[in-house]
Amino acid sequence: MSFRASVLTLYPDMFPGTLGHSLAGRALENGVWDLEVTQIRDFAEGKHKNVDDTPSGGGAGMVLRADVVGRAIDSVSLPDDPRPRLMMSPRGKPLTQERVREIKDGPGVVIVCGRFEGLDQRVIDARDLEEVSIGDYILSGGEVAAQVLLDAVVRLLPGVMGNDISGETESFETGLLEHPHYTRPAIWAGLNIPDILSSGNHGKVEEWRRKQAEELTKERRPDLWQAYRNKNAAK
Amino acid sequence: MSFRASVLTLYPDMFPGTLGHSLAGRALENGVWDLEVTQIRDFAEGKHKNVDDTPSGGGAGMVLRADVVGRAIDSVSLPDDPRPRLMMSPRGKPLTQERVREIKDGPGVVIVCGRFEGLDQRVIDARDLEEVSIGDYILSGGEVAAQVLLDAVVRLLPGVMGNDISGETESFETGLLEHPHYTRPAIWAGLNIPDILSSGNHGKVEEWRRKQAEELTKERRPDLWQAYRNKNAAK
Repeated sequence: MSFRASVLTLYPDMFPGTLGHSLAGRALENGVWDLEVTQIRDFAEGKHKNVDDTPSGGGAGMVLRADVVGRAIDSVSLPDDPRPRLMMSPRGKPLTQERVREIKDGPGVVIVCGRFEGLDQRVIDARDLEEVSIGDYILSGGEVAAQVLLDAVVRLLPGVMGNDISGETESFETGLLEHPHYTRPAIWAGLNIPDILSSGNHGKVEEWRRKQAEELTKERRPDLWQAYRNKNAAK
Repeated sequence: MSFRASVLTLYPDMFPGTLGHSLAGRALENGVWDLEVTQIRDFAEGKHKNVDDTPSGGGAGMVLRADVVGRAIDSVSLPDDPRPRLMMSPRGKPLTQERVREIKDGPGVVIVCGRFEGLDQRVIDARDLEEVSIGDYILSGGEVAAQVLLDAVVRLLPGVMGNDISGETESFETGLLEHPHYTRPAIWAGLNIPDILSSGNHGKVEEWRRKQAEELTKERRPDLWQAYRNKNAAK
């Protein structure tokens, strides 16, 4: 059973987009995961096929209609669908690597891509949509956010990454940002690689890297550093 | 002068991707912004055109070479280029709407898309690359992150959004998550739109919305709620 992603959007041509290349693209070709893209507009009715309308109570922008999006969701995901139904939205809970892993371990995902001011709250409630935010900034729509989420999930599916170790030693997986990397040439533009890395002393290299990762985390992400210290203190 | 974006990547075919559609795509066609995509591999030398090598000091994965990426950067951005040079990386400073606005107000941006374990630290230092993270999760590469950043920036460029008011009343711009939205039909699947929104009392509607936004922020984002309270207390 491959991982099954259903995406609902007003811009189906945006897909597979970045997901059609590199790791995710090869995995898609090889059937490791499956992508079904649905045009929300196909579920609009009436002469004008309207998908949106002005906000109740007034205000700027347009709101996606509950009836149209509701029918679109029902066309790909019945009530007994075990897949989580997500809605990409800046109002959502921030996406974390932990949530990415949970989704990866499941049968797939249904993603509604927001546009305009947002989606009628009634369909969010009635279809139990989990609002997910990829970060504290505003996008023109949820399509690129959906690609971010799927890219993060797909790379963790079995067989997608060449080297499985890579998935485990990265930023966030240890609770620290990653240490700096260096590679050949040994001298570039007059700059050397730190001596310790060519010492051949594995223990010293590990110690240096951990120290660098700690310093970087402390400086750039006091929030992660605090969480890391609390976790280690609790051990 | 249009906003000038230069992207350095091993997957130039991923661009413009989502940026070729909808708001950003129309703005690209209309010359509101300009996108130049450079293949990093074109700056590799030798028989094998290697762009990466094993990490100094050992470990899993591959590291992008300083000499190759350095030449690629120099081909699009001379030392006196006024544009910020970004490197999309989970180690970076988290992207905020404030940073998006700063970039939008400048002449453009140079973005290096990371791949593999990362980029040789010497080129990050020597070319003054600002590491930027779009969120606390790991992607297969910086390409989709670059599209997120550019989408967020481009939608704010003059003339891109139909209704300029939309940019100002959204989540983060007020320090609160956005209130719920509703639109026609008035009854959907037995569910009504909250009465207050059809009261015609503009003041009551505003009050209800602010209250809803506050409740949502308190519940989902205690971090934003704390910052909002501190800001208002300081006034």
